[in-house]
Amino acid sequence: MPELRKDPIIDRWVIISTERGKRPKDYPPLPPKQNSEKCPFCPGKEDQTPPEIFAFRPTGSQSNTQGWSVRVVPNKYPALKIEGELDREGVGMFDKMNGIGAHEVIIETPEHHLELADLSYKEVEDVLWVFVGRSIDLKQDKRFRYILIFKNQGEAAGASLEHTHSQLIATPIIPLQVQNELQGSKDYFHHKERCIFCDGIRQDSKGGERIVMQNELFVTLEPYAPCFPFETWILPKFHASDFAALKKEGVQALAQILKETLMCLHKALNLPPYNFIIHTAPLQNNCEEFYHWHFEIVPRLTRVAGFEWGSGFFINPVSPEEAAQVLKETCCNKKNSA
Amino acid sequence: MPELRKDPIIDRWVIISTERGKRPKDYPPLPPKQNSEKCPFCPGKEDQTPPEIFAFRPTGSQSNTQGWSVRVVPNKYPALKIEGELDREGVGMFDKMNGIGAHEVIIETPEHHLELADLSYKEVEDVLWVFVGRSIDLKQDKRFRYILIFKNQGEAAGASLEHTHSQLIATPIIPLQVQNELQGSKDYFHHKERCIFCDGIRQDSKGGERIVMQNELFVTLEPYAPCFPFETWILPKFHASDFAALKKEGVQALAQILKETLMCLHKALNLPPYNFIIHTAPLQNNCEEFYHWHFEIVPRLTRVAGFEWGSGFFINPVSPEEAAQVLKETCCNKKNSA
Repeated sequence: MPELRKDPIIDRWVIISTERGKRPKDYPPLPPKQNSEKCPFCPGKEDQTPPEIFAFRPTGSQSNTQGWSVRVVPNKYPALKIEGELDREGVGMFDKMNGIGAHEVIIETPEHHLELADLSYKEVEDVLWVFVGRSIDLKQDKRFRYILIFKNQGEAAGASLEHTHSQLIATPIIPLQVQNELQGSKDYFHHKERCIFCDGIRQDSKGGERIVMQNELFVTLEPYAPCFPFETWILPKFHASDFAALKKEGVQALAQILKETLMCLHKALNLPPYNFIIHTAPLQNNCEEFYHWHFEIVPRLTRVAGFEWGSGFFINPVSPEEAAQVLKETCCNKKNSA
Repeated sequence: MPELRKDPIIDRWVIISTERGKRPKDYPPLPPKQNSEKCPFCPGKEDQTPPEIFAFRPTGSQSNTQGWSVRVVPNKYPALKIEGELDREGVGMFDKMNGIGAHEVIIETPEHHLELADLSYKEVEDVLWVFVGRSIDLKQDKRFRYILIFKNQGEAAGASLEHTHSQLIATPIIPLQVQNELQGSKDYFHHKERCIFCDGIRQDSKGGERIVMQNELFVTLEPYAPCFPFETWILPKFHASDFAALKKEGVQALAQILKETLMCLHKALNLPPYNFIIHTAPLQNNCEEFYHWHFEIVPRLTRVAGFEWGSGFFINPVSPEEAAQVLKETCCNKKNSA
């Protein structure tokens, strides 16, 4: 059973998940190599994943057979397990709980050689609808406090299978980075009675030097103090704390800007490995007034020196203004959607 | 001029240092390759680094010539610049200051093909004396609030030159991770009137399952809730907040346990790339009672999925008890120094 343990000094929960198949002696692991013939995410291999949780497929077609366009399955090596009660326990001065949670994989397309940015607007929209739908479903489970949706694209970004996919982890804890954002935006709201993200968008829109693109509902920008080169955020221009509350108009507009932002990063940086994470409100948390959900996209361009994580002190060799300029010039070759 | 910018939401300072030589278009950069003939850290190439700040060298020998055993030079591509006043400025809702600081390189040995763990106890001791000496010297500069000493060993850990070296960055801010540790240990002290690190060592010493090795003054252990496989800490068994206050006996004992810990990690994990960071008290900060300095060593074994940094939510596939067991078995082939 995986275990959640809390660092007693900085209150950060860590999943210790030794059942993921490796023995300590197996480190460093070999990089997993995949081709489409052996890929368990390809059509015709539906029996090689755990049974599907959800799929977009033609009416009348059977679960776990071919024909789907987006497919959700449990992670075969889950970091957290769905069965069981949430037990908390003290171990002397330390705290732990058993590793209850959901860990799902969203296979974004049946096509092995495409990436998310290659899909049509409609197909990206379908992927986003799956994110929304799975979030709404899992919210009903009162054991969970957060739903983390993320993507590791490319081996250097942590992907262990080549076939394009995203992941969802529902956890009984709130990730530390989100906690810090909640605290920061709450403090700001307390002083100013305004959302700090909305204020940031307003300020950036005036100067415009960190804005990459926008449509009616969303904006893509480089944040003021990014940890990484070309770190890129997509935010709703309207105030909203919960990603899963998106309606049709919002999902359509988000699909458009997400696809175009990824295409732009691909074109400017020559198909980099990247991660994205959706930062959204925790479940059962009254943060509607002050929190503002958003996508954070981080291309993995630099070998990040480990001291940066250990210290929380980042050195970024590309200013966000320069990065925005490069991205804007790249986008300019096509019609600007702003 | 490099610039320090503060993320307004989570109060994290980031160095934007675009003068490090690369243009945005240069990403991803090529991995730097080195051999000993071209290495600027080798003896005889003293003119290829900025003039030395300090060196252990035979009495009477000239600065910036051969003969040294440990050598400290300014980083040729510093993340922060030593000259100038510390100016702070608001940019609308954002905060910045100019990037004042020191960025030094400690070349640990003249031998190109050795690593820190290969050096003799006496040579490791000399490297530690340099860490202490440079810290004491830089403390006098009232513009600085923190002295961060770290090592990136191996390309995967962020080293850009092969020749073994550590780095020191003196900054006008306190790194976020250290700030969080200070806050956590202060809160704990407020409730218990005891140091949380001392309590942790006491608890771990009773069970012993996370203790790797110890000598009279120091202990090497795997922390209870580590983010990474084989994350390893070295802590003084006596309470002390400031690394730079170490005296002769302490430096000797630390050199012994540091060398043996690194040798053990090398042997158990087949020479992994690694980082270490010294977590110590900030300058001009009254944390003597509650903070406890320590080394954090992180082998770079897994490709860390970027979502882990973005969320602050870590999945560790090796429990610290398993890791300690593997390391203890590895060490057992030689005399146990405990």
